[in-house]
Amino acid sequence: MTTARSVEEHAGIVARMLEPLGDEPSVETVPLAEALGRVTAGEVRSEVDLPLFRNSQMDGYAVRAADIHAVPVALEVSGDIPAGHTSPVTLIAGTALRIMTGAPVPTGADAIVPVEDTGLILGRDDDLEGAVVEIRRSRTAGEYVRERGSDVRRGDVLVPEGTRLAPRHLAALAAAGVEAVAVRARLRVAVLTTGSELVTSGSPAHGQVFDANGIALAALVEEAGAVVSVRASSDDDPGAFARILDDAIRSSDLVITSGGISKGAYEVVREVLLPRGADVTSVAMQPGGPQATAVIDGVPVVAFPGNPVSTQVSFAVFLRGPLRAAAGLPPLPPQRATLTEAVRSVPGRRQFLRGRLGESGGVAPVAGPSSHLVAAMAKADVLIDVPVEAEALDAGSAVTVWTL
Amino acid sequence: MTTARSVEEHAGIVARMLEPLGDEPSVETVPLAEALGRVTAGEVRSEVDLPLFRNSQMDGYAVRAADIHAVPVALEVSGDIPAGHTSPVTLIAGTALRIMTGAPVPTGADAIVPVEDTGLILGRDDDLEGAVVEIRRSRTAGEYVRERGSDVRRGDVLVPEGTRLAPRHLAALAAAGVEAVAVRARLRVAVLTTGSELVTSGSPAHGQVFDANGIALAALVEEAGAVVSVRASSDDDPGAFARILDDAIRSSDLVITSGGISKGAYEVVREVLLPRGADVTSVAMQPGGPQATAVIDGVPVVAFPGNPVSTQVSFAVFLRGPLRAAAGLPPLPPQRATLTEAVRSVPGRRQFLRGRLGESGGVAPVAGPSSHLVAAMAKADVLIDVPVEAEALDAGSAVTVWTL
Repeated sequence: MTTARSVEEHAGIVARMLEPLGDEPSVETVPLAEALGRVTAGEVRSEVDLPLFRNSQMDGYAVRAADIHAVPVALEVSGDIPAGHTSPVTLIAGTALRIMTGAPVPTGADAIVPVEDTGLILGRDDDLEGAVVEIRRSRTAGEYVRERGSDVRRGDVLVPEGTRLAPRHLAALAAAGVEAVAVRARLRVAVLTTGSELVTSGSPAHGQVFDANGIALAALVEEAGAVVSVRASSDDDPGAFARILDDAIRSSDLVITSGGISKGAYEVVREVLLPRGADVTSVAMQPGGPQATAVIDGVPVVAFPGNPVSTQVSFAVFLRGPLRAAAGLPPLPPQRATLTEAVRSVPGRRQFLRGRLGESGGVAPVAGPSSHLVAAMAKADVLIDVPVEAEALDAGSAVTVWTL
Repeated sequence: MTTARSVEEHAGIVARMLEPLGDEPSVETVPLAEALGRVTAGEVRSEVDLPLFRNSQMDGYAVRAADIHAVPVALEVSGDIPAGHTSPVTLIAGTALRIMTGAPVPTGADAIVPVEDTGLILGRDDDLEGAVVEIRRSRTAGEYVRERGSDVRRGDVLVPEGTRLAPRHLAALAAAGVEAVAVRARLRVAVLTTGSELVTSGSPAHGQVFDANGIALAALVEEAGAVVSVRASSDDDPGAFARILDDAIRSSDLVITSGGISKGAYEVVREVLLPRGADVTSVAMQPGGPQATAVIDGVPVVAFPGNPVSTQVSFAVFLRGPLRAAAGLPPLPPQRATLTEAVRSVPGRRQFLRGRLGESGGVAPVAGPSSHLVAAMAKADVLIDVPVEAEALDAGSAVTVWTL
């Protein structure tokens, strides 16, 4: 075997292929109700002051602070301002206006007395005709008044560019009357699986297997903030694969394939991609050695080996980071953990063992290293990163782990 | 004011109301392609052995280990087994069969020699007629053979109950031929906002505001693993609110309302819920003091105050945990952080300030305590939990923070 490429070098090649997708994202405008989790394509500024108008912070009475300097004091109730009251009201000096939380503070009033500090001495709550209210606590000008623009001013940034929209951002946008927001379009990713042995529906004959990679890659793509544009499968006939590849390229920003790139006799992806200028290589890793990349009609193609474990590990090592970056999602940094049992490795290959984190920072391998152990991999929650030079690691060794 | 209920007590009341929803979840069966992130309603056992059949781990030659005891040795190539080959093949003793990764190991063969350890001395890769292969390295019985059932055996658990389905689980299920999976049905949650001042589309007149709570609560519900069954708004007319409430109850597992439960004069939720047995109360917290709960026709109703910040904080404090639990999602435990500046609080009320985590475990308040600061809240990523008895906390104090 010729010298294999390092994981770091191949990861760099894939990342650079995907960089333009993140640097010049397509933008789409979506209604707020569909914007949860999307990433803003630009900063969003407020076109209004918030609050929109000077309003009451409490249920109570709007007064002139000067009129309640000495308490207790009895004031005529000259009207009522419920929330949602739309006609401007002016306070007659020396009187009080009943007001509800959020209602506009009348012209001439400069303080709100909370209802708890008042009592009607004439009239009733449900009949304010001729009512008189006793104010029992004085308030200074401005108290319990929310000034217009005290939350945000017209022209201020409500949400910066690159924000992953959470409920609180949507609330702020909605409060400012924003109905739709420009967000990064999700990358359209095609998932193509290959292999004459694959059965995508129905029952496998002897020698055939169920396709696990189509569903796994589609889910991984979705988790990384992209959408699956095409999901298709072909047997090992180059013409059949070329057809699904060409279809995928026409409708996608990125194409992922699984299978058909190692050194066997029926390597359909290799056969079709090589004449189109693909870089078919061997990476010093386990699982996942055979890897390939190509750019066809401007669309990057990333080709993974077909063993289900190899495919999933390859995605985690090479594509997850660049896809998340292109989607504007934060990276998922590695953690450190302590091996709870010894592991063996193959020197010259960086090994990604499937592991499970336990209490207090321990991690145990949950399956053998073989890349066909797809059911065992379901028990894992991390990949244990065994350095390329290691032949074995003792129990108690500190290792890097990557969340799955 | 009568003695307010503690946050802990009210949280307990809400949690107990929602417990039956989590204990006896409805179950639905969804295709694997729609199952990402869903939570299994029971364990899923494999109906097959995986691998389905004994197959080759490498591209190479299937042989009898006994025939390659002494190397190099030349063996006639008696046939070819590509992946996906569906007719059973038997190895003639003393010969080799070319075999691809994943292809069924022929009857009579007990080892695979990787292609790297071989060379054709007669014939060509694309014409094996009369070919002879030289085997350069001996292998013992079982090498590079994946035994049937070595990953999982028929009847073994593929995915335990209560698993939030990640790509790796879907891969395992797909590999075992599972096409659909029983998952917890998402809770159907109605979001009702109230207030004559609310504008849900178009432009507000003087005194009106855009409804921020509808979008915020809908997004919070979705984030907590439920679906929004109804989103509606009413003014402060009790008849109008009763109509949207009754509609919501008929089609939902839970109803959330905002607004209309404090002590003002136009408290529509309070007016409609009280005669139906609601518990309308005041909780010793800020923001979010007025709170109510009811059970109507067996459907829990949780009523929050209407200030946008109060509504969002109330959801985080009272509903997020129980909804996530009912959905089978893990809790979001609080963290500890260090205040980077002093804060003041109101003794007798547990205060939830909006804060932003910084480098190295510091947290700073990002807005004043007032519950109308909905735009400022968008800058926060945590709630700073100021204990009920505190009047002020110095910079450097350790506080509990809750992720928003």
